Amino acid sequence: MPSVWQMNRAGVGVMTRYEEVAATLRERIEHGIYRVGDRLPSIRAVCQELNVSISTAQEAYRQLMDAALIESRPKSGYFVLPCRIPSVLPSVSRPAQCPLDVSQWDQVLELVATQRDDKRLLLGRGVPNLEVASLKPLSKILAGLHRSNDLHGFNYDKLSGSPELRQQVARLAVASGCLLHPDDVLITTGCQEALSIALRTLTQPGDVVAVDSPSFYGTMQILKANGLKALEIPTDPQTGISLEALELALEQWPIRAIQVTPTYNNPLGYTMPEARKRALYQLAQRFDVAIIEDDIYGDLAYTQPRPLTIKSFDTDGRVLLCSGFSKTLGPGLRVGWLAPGCYREKALHMKYVSTGASATLPQLAVAEFVAKGHFERHLRAVSRQYQRQRDIMISWVQRYFPKGSGISYPQGGFLLWVELPADVDCVRLNERLAQHAIHVAPGALFSASGKFRQCLRLNYAFTLTPAMEEAVRTVGELAREMLSEVRESSLAMK
Amino acid sequence: MPSVWQMNRAGVGVMTRYEEVAATLRERIEHGIYRVGDRLPSIRAVCQELNVSISTAQEAYRQLMDAALIESRPKSGYFVLPCRIPSVLPSVSRPAQCPLDVSQWDQVLELVATQRDDKRLLLGRGVPNLEVASLKPLSKILAGLHRSNDLHGFNYDKLSGSPELRQQVARLAVASGCLLHPDDVLITTGCQEALSIALRTLTQPGDVVAVDSPSFYGTMQILKANGLKALEIPTDPQTGISLEALELALEQWPIRAIQVTPTYNNPLGYTMPEARKRALYQLAQRFDVAIIEDDIYGDLAYTQPRPLTIKSFDTDGRVLLCSGFSKTLGPGLRVGWLAPGCYREKALHMKYVSTGASATLPQLAVAEFVAKGHFERHLRAVSRQYQRQRDIMISWVQRYFPKGSGISYPQGGFLLWVELPADVDCVRLNERLAQHAIHVAPGALFSASGKFRQCLRLNYAFTLTPAMEEAVRTVGELAREMLSEVRESSLAMK
Ligand SMILES: Cc1ncc(COP(=O)(O)O)c(C=O)c1O
Ligand SMILES: Cc1ncc(COP(=O)(O)O)c(C=O)c1O
Repeated sequence: MPSVWQMNRAGVGVMTRYEEVAATLRERIEHGIYRVGDRLPSIRAVCQELNVSISTAQEAYRQLMDAALIESRPKSGYFVLPCRIPSVLPSVSRPAQCPLDVSQWDQVLELVATQRDDKRLLLGRGVPNLEVASLKPLSKILAGLHRSNDLHGFNYDKLSGSPELRQQVARLAVASGCLLHPDDVLITTGCQEALSIALRTLTQPGDVVAVDSPSFYGTMQILKANGLKALEIPTDPQTGISLEALELALEQWPIRAIQVTPTYNNPLGYTMPEARKRALYQLAQRFDVAIIEDDIYGDLAYTQPRPLTIKSFDTDGRVLLCSGFSKTLGPGLRVGWLAPGCYREKALHMKYVSTGASATLPQLAVAEFVAKGHFERHLRAVSRQYQRQRDIMISWVQRYFPKGSGISYPQGGFLLWVELPADVDCVRLNERLAQHAIHVAPGALFSASGKFRQCLRLNYAFTLTPAMEEAVRTVGELAREMLSEVRESSLAMK
Repeated sequence: MPSVWQMNRAGVGVMTRYEEVAATLRERIEHGIYRVGDRLPSIRAVCQELNVSISTAQEAYRQLMDAALIESRPKSGYFVLPCRIPSVLPSVSRPAQCPLDVSQWDQVLELVATQRDDKRLLLGRGVPNLEVASLKPLSKILAGLHRSNDLHGFNYDKLSGSPELRQQVARLAVASGCLLHPDDVLITTGCQEALSIALRTLTQPGDVVAVDSPSFYGTMQILKANGLKALEIPTDPQTGISLEALELALEQWPIRAIQVTPTYNNPLGYTMPEARKRALYQLAQRFDVAIIEDDIYGDLAYTQPRPLTIKSFDTDGRVLLCSGFSKTLGPGLRVGWLAPGCYREKALHMKYVSTGASATLPQLAVAEFVAKGHFERHLRAVSRQYQRQRDIMISWVQRYFPKGSGISYPQGGFLLWVELPADVDCVRLNERLAQHAIHVAPGALFSASGKFRQCLRLNYAFTLTPAMEEAVRTVGELAREMLSEVRESSLAMK
């Protein structure tokens, strides 16, 4: 797989100034001039040394962050990241290159049908930390709106959603490089409805959809329910869907839509570098196919500014951007949104037949929360926390899991992907964990047909207690048990 | 069309005791022994005279009410109804007898895309009265829940819905003759999602669905969005879908599901007599086809007990009952439910891909509102009000609309159906009304392909002000204007 840099050289041709700066810094990292954990020169120092503008230097650092080579720590500067050691990262997925029917519903159901009063420690669910003080104002706003509820809180809202909220969504989208008009936004009942509407807007039963792989199980199940076929494209755990493989697939199969989660990917954690996002858009343009971009974790950036969306490059409306407030505020609110580009009319019809207008008061509450600045404050608080907890969770996994396990290194969100040695079957591991009242998300959920059986997803959003460390230790121990069982039985066979 | 009685004699054979009593009373009404507006003998008096038990006499009166021959007025007794004069009722629909693609989305969009701050008088929307005191406790409960919100209010709920609410739904369903376990109930995001899930559970694109006609436009649009064909079955404005026509259709076409709103039908207002509901179920059994029963208005009965659902006769799980709290509490809450019978597993998958779990706190709030008895109190208050307002709205229509207009006479809910002389095109009428800031629901919305153009639907839920009377007068006047234009131009042609 060519790196971003090679691709830029080969594909796009001439390097821009900031790409040159990034390449220079990258070489120094690779040659050990700056070593893991080192602080890099300040932006100002780079400007002076290489004779470039501040914005060029910033952009270069941005690219290095996108490539997960360095990270920025608030008020301290930029640091070289430790995880370029290939053996620590999950491997590139190499799924079968033909469209498949989606299975795995039983496993997904087991994960999502968990009860509120579930006594198990759910290490695998995609739920943010709900116990943070910065969420309090939202409860207050909601209570206030309901107390003073006049007519319209109980009435149908506008089909496309509350104007107040659509305005705030459009305003927030600027941070990801999107210039949306409030009328470009359709409020949905969670991001799941946005994805469902986007897929139903673009496809007919039997159609083929290209997906990154592994991919969010909710999307995979939408494919299943609509009789669509998933074409799983090899995906790099650092740079995302392989554009080379996708191009081949586009030549070979009648692909109706490309579905990706390019920023803080669930489950792999990577962010596609900006250049690759742009290249993906250009590829879609060349083959005249639509992109469904899931950006639900995009606001949970550990460093500012947050990465651009593919939608930010969209000049002809072919990107349907799906997002919402489930991972930032709380999924129980069911407030999501869709920017359907040039498919607005059909999407609006799909929205109507799916659930009619979405609930009124939660929309007004979120709009007020954002308008008053609580949202940005909240994002800062949780992102800092998630970044800290990522490192703790990684250290636990390194300590307790079998040697040779690959671990992701997300720059946003709160999900960790672990690839165990090939002999560990995580569906069976999960069955054994049930006896310890522990539940993880087995990797097989994230594939059309049960690949990634040796992988699992962990959540590090909730406050990491000693009980959680103990649980991670148990997961690692049972995994090692399974490994030695397999080895013993294969020895016995000889 | 044979009456209920003929059908009982011919179809089911022997009359039961209560059917005999009902037939006797019916004959007396038809022979003018009891005349329009007369009070009928009390239950006790009937028991003595005809030597039957109290429950038999009650059941007989129930049948007469189902047939819209009499009505019960709280604390006063039973009265003969005035509207058996055929010319006052809309005529039986005679739609084309072949499956059709659904159109009319533009018209529906215009109706449902109305803004919260719409300045027009929306005489046609399906929204209940939200200004009643008996709803206040719900706002209080919601405010309280949000104020004291702990973790789980913002978290994903159980996929099938809050156990608290499913328990209350099961309890309430007893009044319609259903014995449901809470696990038989799936909470949805409005009744629209219940209908959508039910249809997607049963069908594949291209399938044929038999529907009553006219039929709720929301359902028709679900058919459209899923590539389903609507087979519109002739429907009697007093007794509902024609079983004879349906039987013929079942013999002729590969029908996958029968979709009906048999109680306080939207838009026609009728309630299918119990015997016909049972016969419909038996027909579905004979042809092994599923029934989707929409009961969203069923709780808004003017007299108690409320009519039985078709689901109450369901012994093999082929009825998918759709309902919710949009017409009783408020559609902005988006709390609906589905009892999917034997299709639970597939329906749960459809629910997951559609929106995931529904919002948590609104479910808990409705559950508490019901559990504390507020719901039944509220139903009593609004039903009484709707019954009164029905009579006022009818008197306005009789006074202001062109002679010969047919008017429905609902025994529950809050929707009136008016059939104008054939020359009035209500889509065009609506266009003219726009200049007066008035909007009605044109009949064409309720058909697959724009039939019922001379019909319209009015809402009498909101407090009937002089401004509303003035608006109804304007509708009638413009309709008469259109009529005389048509007549003049046809005279000029001679
Ligand atoms: C990538 C991704 N998209 C969409 C969703 C669904 O979000 P919502 O709860 O808003 O429907 C999730 C939740 O797990 C997710 O991880
Ligand atoms: C017959 C019927 N079914 C279903 C619905 C949809 O109800 P909800 O608002 O709960 O989706 C309506 C609303 O107009 C209706 O009239």
